[in-house]
Amino acid sequence: MKDCIIIGSGVGGISAALTLQANGKDFLMFGVENLSDKIEKAEKIHNYPGLPDVSGKDFVAALKAQLSLAKIEVKTEKVAGVYALKDGFTVLTQAGEQYKSRTVILATGVESIRQIDGEEEFFGRGVSYCATCDGFLYKDKTIAVLCTTKRLEHEIGYLANFAKKVYLIPMYKNVEVSAENVTSIVKMPKKIDGDRRVNRLIFSSAPSQDIPQVLEIDGFFALRESVSPAVLVGGLKTENGHIIVDRNMTTNIPGCYAAGDCTGRPYQYAKAIGEGNIAAHSVSEFLR
Amino acid sequence: MKDCIIIGSGVGGISAALTLQANGKDFLMFGVENLSDKIEKAEKIHNYPGLPDVSGKDFVAALKAQLSLAKIEVKTEKVAGVYALKDGFTVLTQAGEQYKSRTVILATGVESIRQIDGEEEFFGRGVSYCATCDGFLYKDKTIAVLCTTKRLEHEIGYLANFAKKVYLIPMYKNVEVSAENVTSIVKMPKKIDGDRRVNRLIFSSAPSQDIPQVLEIDGFFALRESVSPAVLVGGLKTENGHIIVDRNMTTNIPGCYAAGDCTGRPYQYAKAIGEGNIAAHSVSEFLR
Repeated sequence: MKDCIIIGSGVGGISAALTLQANGKDFLMFGVENLSDKIEKAEKIHNYPGLPDVSGKDFVAALKAQLSLAKIEVKTEKVAGVYALKDGFTVLTQAGEQYKSRTVILATGVESIRQIDGEEEFFGRGVSYCATCDGFLYKDKTIAVLCTTKRLEHEIGYLANFAKKVYLIPMYKNVEVSAENVTSIVKMPKKIDGDRRVNRLIFSSAPSQDIPQVLEIDGFFALRESVSPAVLVGGLKTENGHIIVDRNMTTNIPGCYAAGDCTGRPYQYAKAIGEGNIAAHSVSEFLR
Repeated sequence: MKDCIIIGSGVGGISAALTLQANGKDFLMFGVENLSDKIEKAEKIHNYPGLPDVSGKDFVAALKAQLSLAKIEVKTEKVAGVYALKDGFTVLTQAGEQYKSRTVILATGVESIRQIDGEEEFFGRGVSYCATCDGFLYKDKTIAVLCTTKRLEHEIGYLANFAKKVYLIPMYKNVEVSAENVTSIVKMPKKIDGDRRVNRLIFSSAPSQDIPQVLEIDGFFALRESVSPAVLVGGLKTENGHIIVDRNMTTNIPGCYAAGDCTGRPYQYAKAIGEGNIAAHSVSEFLR
């Protein structure tokens, strides 16, 4: 049982990790290899105190060096869900591993690509964010897959092994999917619709001559780097896609804290760092 | 009329300044030459993202370089008071200068030296924080002066010019005050007491053979680097010495924001930086 599990390796998560480390806490941090796409892609950051006009690449390099110096490892397994139990939390990865902790800090950022209408409504009823978790449910079925990044392309192949037919909506360039039952659509869907479960994917107009405006499907997968916090943690209270927190970064779930862009605007590095720091202090307080 | 005046040059104030600068706002920042005693005296900072195990001195140097690059000046005049007017704020310095702005960000830190019992009760009724503002009121009177730093020693001489008798309680080493009417006391007072105004300074026991346990005085000056925010800004709501703010760093006074240690624990650089950033965004929002 760890003291804390941090989900997210952007500056909010890193700030929390450095402070937990300084406070002698035993924790895990889940994130991505380059720590944060948002930071890495930033051209120049003009308002981060201590690093004048730093480039995103240099900032990532400095943060990596700092984590290495502090002996903090970033686990790159994708988190599938966080479950609040009686005496703590279980974090389940998409690979099926389980990790337990007394507290959780959510520093998941905000997905800049907005949700499809109907996505939240049908989550768990035909909408899934995890190919390896739910792929087998769609054996010989017809599914649509929205994939936002090349990094998750391998999951499309995984889904194509089960499904009879895959309609792929890729949001990146150089698509390399060889499975014969996969058809690409270069148009964003307008709405996920259905009766009790997902039945249809609706476009504003027919995407092409072969693809009708209303596509009959059995399931919809959205493969994104991060899922919305409310989906990740059942029962978590959010508002307009942001986690509701107080000044101690406490969420509505005891022992669950949040920091950074996922708690709302301004989407700024300094804000995320401040909140990560506060969340770590709140964790220490909670453990006491 | 400036867009904003920032009071305090610690990392909270600097973070606000860099963000206001990035947002093209016209502002002034008041602070001290070395930016922050707290930072400068820090041995190593272990949990500031981007600057691994940075020393306080190196951090101050990096911040100074950054302010210089961004062409942000730190005005070192001491602020005597902030007055909320109909269309903005007037900031009065101890030298008697006035500056006007539409908004204010308080980033004044926390005074680590605690207040004397009775100080707040008698503020404005014999207790003063400003020698140049109130010194002339004590012509031919007996006063006690608590001075926390060598940097403010010159104000003791100023007070000694007016007062008949000055009892000095210095909280620094190498006291160099030559005026004949100044007597030093090397003991902290326990309580400031009086009837309608300050009449007595009470010690737990007589400080020396010449100085009685209860000293008759007409006024009490506390010369500190910073005064409590509630004293600085009339009507500002505080709780246990901290400014009450919401998640947007809004105080109870419209247009007045706060950031950093003055808003409460944890007293951490990362927290202060985050709050300074948010306060600057709130100012931009307010001006819009």
